Amino acid sequence: MAASLPSVLVVGTGLLGASVGLKWRSLGGAVYVRDQSPTAAAIAEDLGAGRLWKDGSDAPDIVVVATPPESTAESIVAALREFPDAVVTDVASIKGRIGAQVRELAAKAGITADLGRYVPGHPMAGRERSGPVAARAELFEAMPWIVCPSGDADATHAVETLARRLGGTVVTMTPEEHDSAVALVSHMPQVAASLVASRLTSGHDSSLALAGNGLRDTTRIAGSDPTLWVQILAGNAAAVRPLLAELASDLHGVLEALEDPAAPGARLALARLLDAGQAGRSRLPGKHGTSSERFAHVMVLLDDRPGQLGSLFNVLADLGVNVEDVRMEHAPGREVGAVDLSVQTHLGQSTADELVARGMNAYHVR
Amino acid sequence: MAASLPSVLVVGTGLLGASVGLKWRSLGGAVYVRDQSPTAAAIAEDLGAGRLWKDGSDAPDIVVVATPPESTAESIVAALREFPDAVVTDVASIKGRIGAQVRELAAKAGITADLGRYVPGHPMAGRERSGPVAARAELFEAMPWIVCPSGDADATHAVETLARRLGGTVVTMTPEEHDSAVALVSHMPQVAASLVASRLTSGHDSSLALAGNGLRDTTRIAGSDPTLWVQILAGNAAAVRPLLAELASDLHGVLEALEDPAAPGARLALARLLDAGQAGRSRLPGKHGTSSERFAHVMVLLDDRPGQLGSLFNVLADLGVNVEDVRMEHAPGREVGAVDLSVQTHLGQSTADELVARGMNAYHVR
Repeated sequence: MAASLPSVLVVGTGLLGASVGLKWRSLGGAVYVRDQSPTAAAIAEDLGAGRLWKDGSDAPDIVVVATPPESTAESIVAALREFPDAVVTDVASIKGRIGAQVRELAAKAGITADLGRYVPGHPMAGRERSGPVAARAELFEAMPWIVCPSGDADATHAVETLARRLGGTVVTMTPEEHDSAVALVSHMPQVAASLVASRLTSGHDSSLALAGNGLRDTTRIAGSDPTLWVQILAGNAAAVRPLLAELASDLHGVLEALEDPAAPGARLALARLLDAGQAGRSRLPGKHGTSSERFAHVMVLLDDRPGQLGSLFNVLADLGVNVEDVRMEHAPGREVGAVDLSVQTHLGQSTADELVARGMNAYHVR
Repeated sequence: MAASLPSVLVVGTGLLGASVGLKWRSLGGAVYVRDQSPTAAAIAEDLGAGRLWKDGSDAPDIVVVATPPESTAESIVAALREFPDAVVTDVASIKGRIGAQVRELAAKAGITADLGRYVPGHPMAGRERSGPVAARAELFEAMPWIVCPSGDADATHAVETLARRLGGTVVTMTPEEHDSAVALVSHMPQVAASLVASRLTSGHDSSLALAGNGLRDTTRIAGSDPTLWVQILAGNAAAVRPLLAELASDLHGVLEALEDPAAPGARLALARLLDAGQAGRSRLPGKHGTSSERFAHVMVLLDDRPGQLGSLFNVLADLGVNVEDVRMEHAPGREVGAVDLSVQTHLGQSTADELVARGMNAYHVR
């Protein structure tokens, strides 16, 4: 066990907490785990995420609070009180509200002076899966980890270092900047995906059988955990609501236009929305932070026999072509599928040509 | 040239029309092409999609009208008049409105008796790309091709056969059923994706830098062609509007709940939406028409060196594991990526174990 690594207590051994434990232990650090559910804590220990905390255990250097958002503030303040020398951080998806709750509880407990030891954090990792069994040491690898500096530079540095060691890319923000950012890129889209997916409950099977990748993509995150998301949306209401209100206003414009598409201005209103959507989409950074428009696509048609993907990627390796992204497209009810490869723009045509020369059914998509 | 294949005239050599031509020629069928833009027609001919139609060319057996929706009806009726023995079909995304326009124009031209020769159709293929240069003979392979039977059984059969030969899976629907189905699985989601993406135009770069796959997925189809989609939405307004009105109503409920999340019933309202979204999502069929919940996921972490994907898929082929789906996940600004493999449920853990045994960084996601 490396003596230089701070010891960590993980409070709350769900997906994030258990993953922190697994990674820290893989680095040789000491980890204790604690959860209000003895079963969850025991599972985490069994998985190797840390040792069960017991009375008499050594006080940790860092406490990582990884409980659901609604109990995070309470756990943070409890940790500040229980471990007067520890740095305390959290991993919750909302920062403003939790910060306000922490300040309130700290004042009541008379430990306002200790608030510098609480450094808010949020690793943007993990998706629809939850619970300790889903935890992975590599969960945070290369994912953004937002850290909100407290007044205490040492404590802040300790949390930033922890986040980096856990694999994250540290992004510094105030709690308000954080809440605005996640409202835009995560919370508002979550609501939209759920709204679209909700319409499918009453669709005919024959309609749903026509669903393509477009609908699947638009509703993918509608599979997220409702209980967690109620807490997130309620906790970040102040930042999310204005975005949804703007969305509702734009939607109202579409409804008006569709009432009489032949009316003056109706088609222009629709065109403006679609244009704005294209413009917004193009602002999203692609892999490595580059514009996603920089890649060419090469489509390769396959059937389902094993071995074809291996052959394809072997050929690509022989050609020295780096695959920037890959997606598979399947048609409902059929064996044939297509692989959509993203390669650097200047390699699109030559890659397709080379694959065709080797007998594959491939073409360059412009 | 196979004498048994009917000859085809493609009117409108965009993505769909030129693809029809390319595929039909690859089967040995005769194809003529026509487009109101001489350049588009010439490009299509150069690409091998067919011969330019000239006065004196042989009358076609089947006319495929592939113009934008706003001019489709006019082109259909013109074809019915010009070629009194031909079957006429179209490929437009909307069927009801075009059918009504066709009946109106046919009545004015005194050719109502010929309407049985018009068999409405819609291949659900093609995405954000457009134009003849993007055309591909395999565009329709394994994709649904909706055919609306006309009163004439021979004409209907001819179009169904054409669609199958072009690679499509024929789905029989009335125009009304078609319009309802595509409104649900395609048009309403398009509006939602554009609404979400529009919010991104005013976001800070620092916020957008945090965008993950969730936002990308939700806004992917916001990249679609605005001009085409104004025609589609306006043309299918009657079917799309009610769905968007329900969405607006649900959204209003969310806005109310977020005004005061602590108010009685507010969290329940949010939970209901998220639950309904989960339920709707689970109704989507997966590959081969099976439930998408039937697959296990195996995550494999890679860096960007060429050759890793080839090794991975070779190992999978050696193991005889069929990859049902594959997605790559990239973290912004970093080299490391993860491959998300979908395999049959019972193979999830063993596949992960085998990959680990071969030195790969893989794990089974439950």
